[in-house]
Amino acid sequence: MGKNIKVGITHGDINGVGYEIIVKSLADEKIPELFTPIVFGSQKLFEKARKEFAQEFPPVEYIKNPAQAKEGKINVVDLQLGDLPLSPGNITRESGEAAVAALEAAVKAIEEKEIDVIVTAPINKAAVQTETFHFPGHTEYLEAKSQTEEQQPRAQMILFDDNLKVALVTTHLPLNKISEAITRDRVLDSIERLDKVLRSDFGSERPKIAVLSLNPHCGDHGLLGNEETEVIIPAIEEAENRGLLVFGPYAADGFFATGAYRNFDGVLAMYHDQGLAPFKALAGEYGVNFTAGLPFVRTSPDHGTAYDIAWKGEADPTSMREAIYKAIDILRNRERYARASRNPLRKARMEKGQDKSVDLTKDTL
Amino acid sequence: MGKNIKVGITHGDINGVGYEIIVKSLADEKIPELFTPIVFGSQKLFEKARKEFAQEFPPVEYIKNPAQAKEGKINVVDLQLGDLPLSPGNITRESGEAAVAALEAAVKAIEEKEIDVIVTAPINKAAVQTETFHFPGHTEYLEAKSQTEEQQPRAQMILFDDNLKVALVTTHLPLNKISEAITRDRVLDSIERLDKVLRSDFGSERPKIAVLSLNPHCGDHGLLGNEETEVIIPAIEEAENRGLLVFGPYAADGFFATGAYRNFDGVLAMYHDQGLAPFKALAGEYGVNFTAGLPFVRTSPDHGTAYDIAWKGEADPTSMREAIYKAIDILRNRERYARASRNPLRKARMEKGQDKSVDLTKDTL
Repeated sequence: MGKNIKVGITHGDINGVGYEIIVKSLADEKIPELFTPIVFGSQKLFEKARKEFAQEFPPVEYIKNPAQAKEGKINVVDLQLGDLPLSPGNITRESGEAAVAALEAAVKAIEEKEIDVIVTAPINKAAVQTETFHFPGHTEYLEAKSQTEEQQPRAQMILFDDNLKVALVTTHLPLNKISEAITRDRVLDSIERLDKVLRSDFGSERPKIAVLSLNPHCGDHGLLGNEETEVIIPAIEEAENRGLLVFGPYAADGFFATGAYRNFDGVLAMYHDQGLAPFKALAGEYGVNFTAGLPFVRTSPDHGTAYDIAWKGEADPTSMREAIYKAIDILRNRERYARASRNPLRKARMEKGQDKSVDLTKDTL
Repeated sequence: MGKNIKVGITHGDINGVGYEIIVKSLADEKIPELFTPIVFGSQKLFEKARKEFAQEFPPVEYIKNPAQAKEGKINVVDLQLGDLPLSPGNITRESGEAAVAALEAAVKAIEEKEIDVIVTAPINKAAVQTETFHFPGHTEYLEAKSQTEEQQPRAQMILFDDNLKVALVTTHLPLNKISEAITRDRVLDSIERLDKVLRSDFGSERPKIAVLSLNPHCGDHGLLGNEETEVIIPAIEEAENRGLLVFGPYAADGFFATGAYRNFDGVLAMYHDQGLAPFKALAGEYGVNFTAGLPFVRTSPDHGTAYDIAWKGEADPTSMREAIYKAIDILRNRERYARASRNPLRKARMEKGQDKSVDLTKDTL
């Protein structure tokens, strides 16, 4: 057992449920033995949340700089954000600025190796927009921030729990723009990136990937759309030619009805609601959002700021807690994969073909 | 307790799992006390399935006509379909003709009040097409068959289990045709029809209906589409003006994440996969398909013919069993509602306003 993993946690939107779910996630005396939390935020608000939402709490260390973090403590980097007025449930300039400040501090800390992973509490997209911050969300910001001359990382949003990992070909598009965005190259690229991340970050040696259809009933032989035959199936075939274990396309409703997802390491959905509605229905409060493709590990809860219950003591910390533990798991998988990849003999053995038969015991309505 | 309800059951596609799930559903000695099953199909195939898939079985009565059905027995109307060659997992002319014959016999029987409800085993769309039968599925056929000079019923597909009832504004459309099909009038009409069926068939006195958004994140103030502000919200507002308890639009992923659906009597999804993928993920094998809006009650399992496991003994009869019991429940609700509607005093009391507050404790990612 090596030294504790340092988990950087940003406070997110102070007017949302961020502080509550952070404090509830850390309110266990065993936490500092499991990992070293370093919260980026405000001493005043952390203290307030700790008093309101936690009975017992491990020792807290308020610090100015993440380099001062101590093992055995809950470390809180006070970002010197001034008075920082609270206005639960409302979008304020101060909440947006405070959210960005914590995010920037955490990214700086991970670049300087003062933390090992980043877990972000939810932000409000509208609140964070300023002259210098103009990203729709965490994912796009982190993708941009982690680009260097050598690396042009491309982020891939993955939602997962212990049973199911879902990636999306398209994310935030109006429904009537999805079809034109689904191209063979884009589907193929999404398959390949998902395959890669399942190997490097989730410990799958030969990932099995299920691809969903765009149209209901897989297009029903063209009656309900042609994207399956013209775009998705050619992408799957090309991925197979490249040696990947890819299956489908499957009609989304039948796929989730039968528990077929349990036979796969990852599922590629064509669009937001197709993947996320059934995922969240199944994962409930255990879902975690992971930004794959970055040079560092970043996870978050799979819910938003929940303004309607902010600072009321009603927020469920499960997704935040899962986000923390899953970030640690992913980091360990990534380190293990890096070690294995340095040993070509082991890698060669890993790449041997396997049986690719998959049972789908029911078809769709 | 009145006399037994007569449940007409069609055998569906003989090369699918129909006979297996029918026989497994009826393989309990108590069945004839609970209801009187009248299976429309083939004596030969029923006998074969009973031997292969059931250990103990209630007494069976093979009859020529549903009018001969007896209480205390499992009645099988032998449709005199000739030799009827089996070819499990394959589309054959004989299987298509046999499926249509059973369906026609069941519809005739319900018109003549020889059965009280219809439960249909799955058919294969391609197999059933003939010169005289050219419907994409059960729903459209039953809608057409039940039209009279007085009645022009319009069918509405509802998927449900004990926790969740989902109706759809659009059903079998390519994804890129959905947006243009979502009009204010169509959404409003779907809301009103769902409200009506929740009252008449599901015993809700003042149904609360949740409407999902078309676009991810409810269109995110127009960034991700305008149908919410231009079409869906106006439809909801008009439905409210007409006195209905309608809420939304809700982003589909957040809606299913939080279990918010438990606060509503019915959910209106905009399209097939949006409603059915999360529904089936949640309902698992307990989902039932109900054709609302017909003069009689028709349910079916929410899965297809499952050709890949036909006649192998692997089929799960749960959805078929649920379809039978739910058809009986709906019939009883409908009778109760008809009695209540004949008593205007009681109806007036039912229509009194109620608190319409609804908690949605989390927002979307």
